[in-house]
Amino acid sequence: MGMPFELNTIIVTKGREKRVGENLFVLEKEGYRLYPIDIPIDVRKTIESDPCGTGVIQKIEWQNNSTWLTYQLISLNSTN
Amino acid sequence: MGMPFELNTIIVTKGREKRVGENLFVLEKEGYRLYPIDIPIDVRKTIESDPCGTGVIQKIEWQNNSTWLTYQLISLNSTN
Amino acid sequence: MGMPFELNTIIVTKGREKRVGENLFVLEKEGYRLYPIDIPIDVRKTIESDPCGTGVIQKIEWQNNSTWLTYQLISLNSTN
Amino acid sequence: MGMPFELNTIIVTKGREKRVGENLFVLEKEGYRLYPIDIPIDVRKTIESDPCGTGVIQKIEWQNNSTWLTYQLISLNSTN
Repeated sequence: MGMPFELNTIIVTKGREKRVGENLFVLEKEGYRLYPIDIPIDVRKTIESDPCGTGVIQKIEWQNNSTWLTYQLISLNSTN
Repeated sequence: MGMPFELNTIIVTKGREKRVGENLFVLEKEGYRLYPIDIPIDVRKTIESDPCGTGVIQKIEWQNNSTWLTYQLISLNSTN
Repeated sequence: MGMPFELNTIIVTKGREKRVGENLFVLEKEGYRLYPIDIPIDVRKTIESDPCGTGVIQKIEWQNNSTWLTYQLISLNSTN
Repeated sequence: MGMPFELNTIIVTKGREKRVGENLFVLEKEGYRLYPIDIPIDVRKTIESDPCGTGVIQKIEWQNNSTWLTYQLISLNSTN
């Protein structure tokens, strides 16, 4: 009866993001997940890794037990 | 800092739904709203009116401070 | 990293509610669950059963991977 | 009909926290707010200030249009 959800506060890409514009990416995540939208949040490659940058989610879609995020990368951490 | 949203348990159409398929409708609602997805919920024309039917939300989209619902009407209450 | 919770729109008691006042009950549910608060919702004994009444949740507590609801039964369906 | 909520990802104390144990604090926030529970999150004095430490929310209560957080401060940032 209940609808399972997951509250997320950072974007973990696992390298699966698809570039769809200048600094714009789409990422599919399994299950229904709630993220802060329109607010800068950390973007990481894996849960354990350091943030690789900061993104702002512009669109969230829930369908077929998946969540699609469209986010803009607004800053990138230098890696060395 | 926080992100406002609204928890909703029924679909209130206010007659603004757009038919996009056999029994499939799209409805835009103001603000970010969370609804149960994949579960039968009441569909009403106004908050005060009796349910006009039962729908199942198949897709929820958040963007630009609006929520788009795609729902299938699975039953219709007879009105007389 | 994410925090699982469940969106619920009705109270399913499974007969485990504890009376703590005139029409006031406390119910513990497993896991973190989000319910509409301050709004009349259906109260059922099991998921499949007909509503046994209408309740208004006055307080929700999350702790130790459990949810405690305090709700007032505002109407009771007659059973015969 | 809907229930207004706010998604929060950090604790902003505004200096209103009450110490209730060794490193344990209770904080009342206005309105119904959703926070990650059981997960380390930033604790700040104001929205604009740097994090003053890291806390883990152990309990969230929603009642009377307020949210009460019980959180443990697990680390404190040095301020000089």
